[in-house]
Amino acid sequence: MSDRAPAADDGRLDVATAQEWLAGSPLAVLLGLTCEEVDVERGRVTLRMPLLPQLERAAGTGQFHGGAVASLIDTAGDFAVATVVGAGVPTINFRVDYLRPSTGPFLLAHATVRRSGRTVAVADVDVLDDAGRLTAVGRGCYSANPG
Amino acid sequence: MSDRAPAADDGRLDVATAQEWLAGSPLAVLLGLTCEEVDVERGRVTLRMPLLPQLERAAGTGQFHGGAVASLIDTAGDFAVATVVGAGVPTINFRVDYLRPSTGPFLLAHATVRRSGRTVAVADVDVLDDAGRLTAVGRGCYSANPG
Amino acid sequence: MSDRAPAADDGRLDVATAQEWLAGSPLAVLLGLTCEEVDVERGRVTLRMPLLPQLERAAGTGQFHGGAVASLIDTAGDFAVATVVGAGVPTINFRVDYLRPSTGPFLLAHATVRRSGRTVAVADVDVLDDAGRLTAVGRGCYSANPG
Amino acid sequence: MSDRAPAADDGRLDVATAQEWLAGSPLAVLLGLTCEEVDVERGRVTLRMPLLPQLERAAGTGQFHGGAVASLIDTAGDFAVATVVGAGVPTINFRVDYLRPSTGPFLLAHATVRRSGRTVAVADVDVLDDAGRLTAVGRGCYSANPG
Repeated sequence: MSDRAPAADDGRLDVATAQEWLAGSPLAVLLGLTCEEVDVERGRVTLRMPLLPQLERAAGTGQFHGGAVASLIDTAGDFAVATVVGAGVPTINFRVDYLRPSTGPFLLAHATVRRSGRTVAVADVDVLDDAGRLTAVGRGCYSANPG
Repeated sequence: MSDRAPAADDGRLDVATAQEWLAGSPLAVLLGLTCEEVDVERGRVTLRMPLLPQLERAAGTGQFHGGAVASLIDTAGDFAVATVVGAGVPTINFRVDYLRPSTGPFLLAHATVRRSGRTVAVADVDVLDDAGRLTAVGRGCYSANPG
Repeated sequence: MSDRAPAADDGRLDVATAQEWLAGSPLAVLLGLTCEEVDVERGRVTLRMPLLPQLERAAGTGQFHGGAVASLIDTAGDFAVATVVGAGVPTINFRVDYLRPSTGPFLLAHATVRRSGRTVAVADVDVLDDAGRLTAVGRGCYSANPG
Repeated sequence: MSDRAPAADDGRLDVATAQEWLAGSPLAVLLGLTCEEVDVERGRVTLRMPLLPQLERAAGTGQFHGGAVASLIDTAGDFAVATVVGAGVPTINFRVDYLRPSTGPFLLAHATVRRSGRTVAVADVDVLDDAGRLTAVGRGCYSANPG
């Protein structure tokens, strides 16, 4: 997106730039998102989301709200595409499958680009809890042309 | 979900119960969600989300973050299913298509049950801005058995 | 797709052109697809698929195979988009939800364009049996630029 | 599905049983589907589809019709779930993303179960051409209870 900070010199995403993007998004700040890893060679990004009180499905459940998980997935997929396209891109559509309750203390979203074509790019996102259990999977389709 | 307030006497959702459910979800409170209408006969629920500062894609853009729109869709679809099933139900999966930028001052999500079977229920959600433009569409599959 | 017959003089789809497209697709012929209606003003197309023996889920079940229903949905959505874009377009992705077993003697797929933008177009498809029951719903995202 | 041949003695799928299932489905026969591999330990199945004349997008293009690819994906995902559940199961919904044109002489669909729970199972399907290029990806949600 054009209001984002520029990426690294080679136009590709790195961890510091990803953190800047997250800091510039009020919702990402509320969600407590941080970037753990950017692997440009493999088109892969890992984001982390802690179980902040405001992210609980209902107070005291210890479970993440599905909407928080969906937001994590959308953002991680977008960043993975940015490793290839060189800038934030609009989401065209995405799908989330919830596989089991997502419980704390944090979730990791591993996003990988499956294909980047002329028009669109597709990314897969696996969400794991701190015990390494797969709690949700996402698949997003993004515009391959920066906004 | 079992930690939710009980629904109306007949076990079905009404606006007051929907508001209680929203008040009990920290994320729904952060998103500023309110329930505008519950139509049990038609399996239809309308939720409203205002453009709070924390929901902007990036500060000053006047556009809702896609994750907020996805959360609105998931919640609205869940509530529509609750008009039939009589209690909050887990989301199995959902898909969001972003059709144009979602701009303020608020969005309305109209959710309708398309089918409620023995195992799962499917709901469609249309998201409109204050000018009545369709900005996103969602389709969710929910467990038909209350948790 | 560039190997398709040209559309009507105004570049938009009509029933005769839709029938030509179906006749030029070996799989559409095997599926027995016919075009019932094209409504360019509303961005809407209706296709029909009979329960041919080769389309049964398993011999003697009287139920359509899910793959045949998916193919019907993809094609109907593509044709709906063609009412707006003026030519056949590649499918980017689509989703099918099966709501109940699809039984004969035929199915009707009503496809409607929800949005046609610069890059992509989104179409919804409802599949009904001869009793008017909704048996499946589809949602497809198509390139808005003819191939 | 209850009209299918029983699986192996331990109730799990093997290649011979998969071939029987394919032989019992008229549409699978038309598509020319064969089973290449069943790996019960990993919840993985590989199906193969040759570029038969009736599967071309349009005569002479050398490209598979999207509906054939979708049918391949749905079937492969269903069989992968059968390695865990022990019998054919109904598809609840699935999504297909087309990544590039699928060209002959054949396609391989590698399906893997991502999660099998009490109510539903989720499978991912990668479709590759004979050069090993990824041409499409699918994700399906299936009932975890045999019909």
